[in-house]
Amino acid sequence: MDEFGIIARYFAPLAATPGAFGLKDDAAIISARPGFDLVVTTDQIAAGTDFFAEDPAGTVAQKALRVNLSDLAAKGAKPEYYLLSLTLPRPAREEWLAEFARGLSQDQRQFGISLLGGDTSATEGPLSVSITAMGFVPAGRMVKRSGAKAGDAVYVTGTIGDSGGGLALLRGEGRDVSEADRAYLVARYRVPEPPKTFGENLCDIAHASVDVSDGLIADLGHLASASGVGIVVEGERVPLSPALKALWGADTMARAVAAGDDYQIAFTAPPGRNGPFTCIGHVRAGEGVSLSVDGKEVAVPQPGYRHF
Amino acid sequence: MDEFGIIARYFAPLAATPGAFGLKDDAAIISARPGFDLVVTTDQIAAGTDFFAEDPAGTVAQKALRVNLSDLAAKGAKPEYYLLSLTLPRPAREEWLAEFARGLSQDQRQFGISLLGGDTSATEGPLSVSITAMGFVPAGRMVKRSGAKAGDAVYVTGTIGDSGGGLALLRGEGRDVSEADRAYLVARYRVPEPPKTFGENLCDIAHASVDVSDGLIADLGHLASASGVGIVVEGERVPLSPALKALWGADTMARAVAAGDDYQIAFTAPPGRNGPFTCIGHVRAGEGVSLSVDGKEVAVPQPGYRHF
Repeated sequence: MDEFGIIARYFAPLAATPGAFGLKDDAAIISARPGFDLVVTTDQIAAGTDFFAEDPAGTVAQKALRVNLSDLAAKGAKPEYYLLSLTLPRPAREEWLAEFARGLSQDQRQFGISLLGGDTSATEGPLSVSITAMGFVPAGRMVKRSGAKAGDAVYVTGTIGDSGGGLALLRGEGRDVSEADRAYLVARYRVPEPPKTFGENLCDIAHASVDVSDGLIADLGHLASASGVGIVVEGERVPLSPALKALWGADTMARAVAAGDDYQIAFTAPPGRNGPFTCIGHVRAGEGVSLSVDGKEVAVPQPGYRHF
Repeated sequence: MDEFGIIARYFAPLAATPGAFGLKDDAAIISARPGFDLVVTTDQIAAGTDFFAEDPAGTVAQKALRVNLSDLAAKGAKPEYYLLSLTLPRPAREEWLAEFARGLSQDQRQFGISLLGGDTSATEGPLSVSITAMGFVPAGRMVKRSGAKAGDAVYVTGTIGDSGGGLALLRGEGRDVSEADRAYLVARYRVPEPPKTFGENLCDIAHASVDVSDGLIADLGHLASASGVGIVVEGERVPLSPALKALWGADTMARAVAAGDDYQIAFTAPPGRNGPFTCIGHVRAGEGVSLSVDGKEVAVPQPGYRHF
């Protein structure tokens, strides 16, 4: 099966939106939506770096999509379309492609998105999946990394570090962790759970926002730098799952805030807000990110994953 | 230098448009342009498949961009933005990156485009560059592959086969070809010349259009299939450069129409049109693409490059 056959069989059925022309043209179109900005982000994942080559094809597909959907969620955008650039080792295996497409199809329903276009090619290197995701925000309302103000509280959705815990387990740590905890953490490594619905309301709440991909401390550092402020994270308030604590014990918080791959949203807003998120600290004049535990500053763990 | 340093030093200066936020945010925005559709396309190139690992970094950058700009040109769109997903073997070499960014910068000026966002990561595999390019057409006016009518003439811009000739030379063919011819053909392989300005007027002229990337016959086959028509290419009218004829002699036309990587525009329109293009055949009822020479049908050469 050549790339035209792969596209026709596995990907064209995912291209439901009229502007995709059934993946049978050179390009797709997005009609102007007056009063809205199109928010665009691109992120790729590769075997050996962001997932394991033997991971189920469906979870690879969903991770590739969701690392992008978390960017849209963190910007307050409602996701709508994505482009898929798939680089496959030869030979292309039909069962793998079928499962990959099923993973995409499930996520299209869950997140309300549609495939708009793409590109499929063969490689001698590792499998990689590059996605460009697009969504809409009311014009001028995208939640930026800049915009945090001294006095804001810092909030985060979900729990932090679970994906890093799943990766540690897959690398051989924690052989005494229960099957249920192991399954939970590995699932979070393979398939992130970006808070889509919450993200769509973010522009009514947040002053500044970032998706947590490099690691909580590292990404809050990006936000602090873009906003020209300092941030204090109160370590004891960082939300941690019971499964992660079972794995990492007393080291859980320190490892979790540096682990990366969370794909949750960290944002700043006035203090006292309640919702599907946790207050973990505050914004002050200054720069950088400090970490405290029970009121005492502690060393900031080393930053998240770096490619080079 | 880690990926943040690479982005800040080499790519942020290319992100001139305000919606890119200096590449310092999680996403970029494109404001709605009422009365226009956004045309979106994505294509990647990889070392060992689409270019040679030792090719100059500046030409790699330009090829990656232009294989996408030819899609926009073939759809009648005025290019505006692009996203860059760069996958680099370790270690990242600063001179290579500087030359790559210079190549992008030159093409940004030449084609009137700006970097909107991207992603940089390391790989154990070959270097690859995935670009998503975006441009605008008046709403509803994108020139599709479908739309060709029996009785239309078939036209093509530029000359066909030069890139394939350049590739053949780099693989060791044609050792007696002159330096000037060699330089011309290799330059066409490394850096396509999509007809940007002409492309922007295409929706006033063409019934159907496709970019010539897989090979003239193969891509006209896509157009014929999408339009539900047959196409006859008159081989003696296919525009061929003197340099290519010096390389391939009597085989030039037969090899050129199957060679691929041209990144010119093939389109159909009423007969008798004049402009920066050549009439090479006509559309008739039926299906598929036939090739004739001096009125006699000849065998269609094997189709262009396939990945799997």
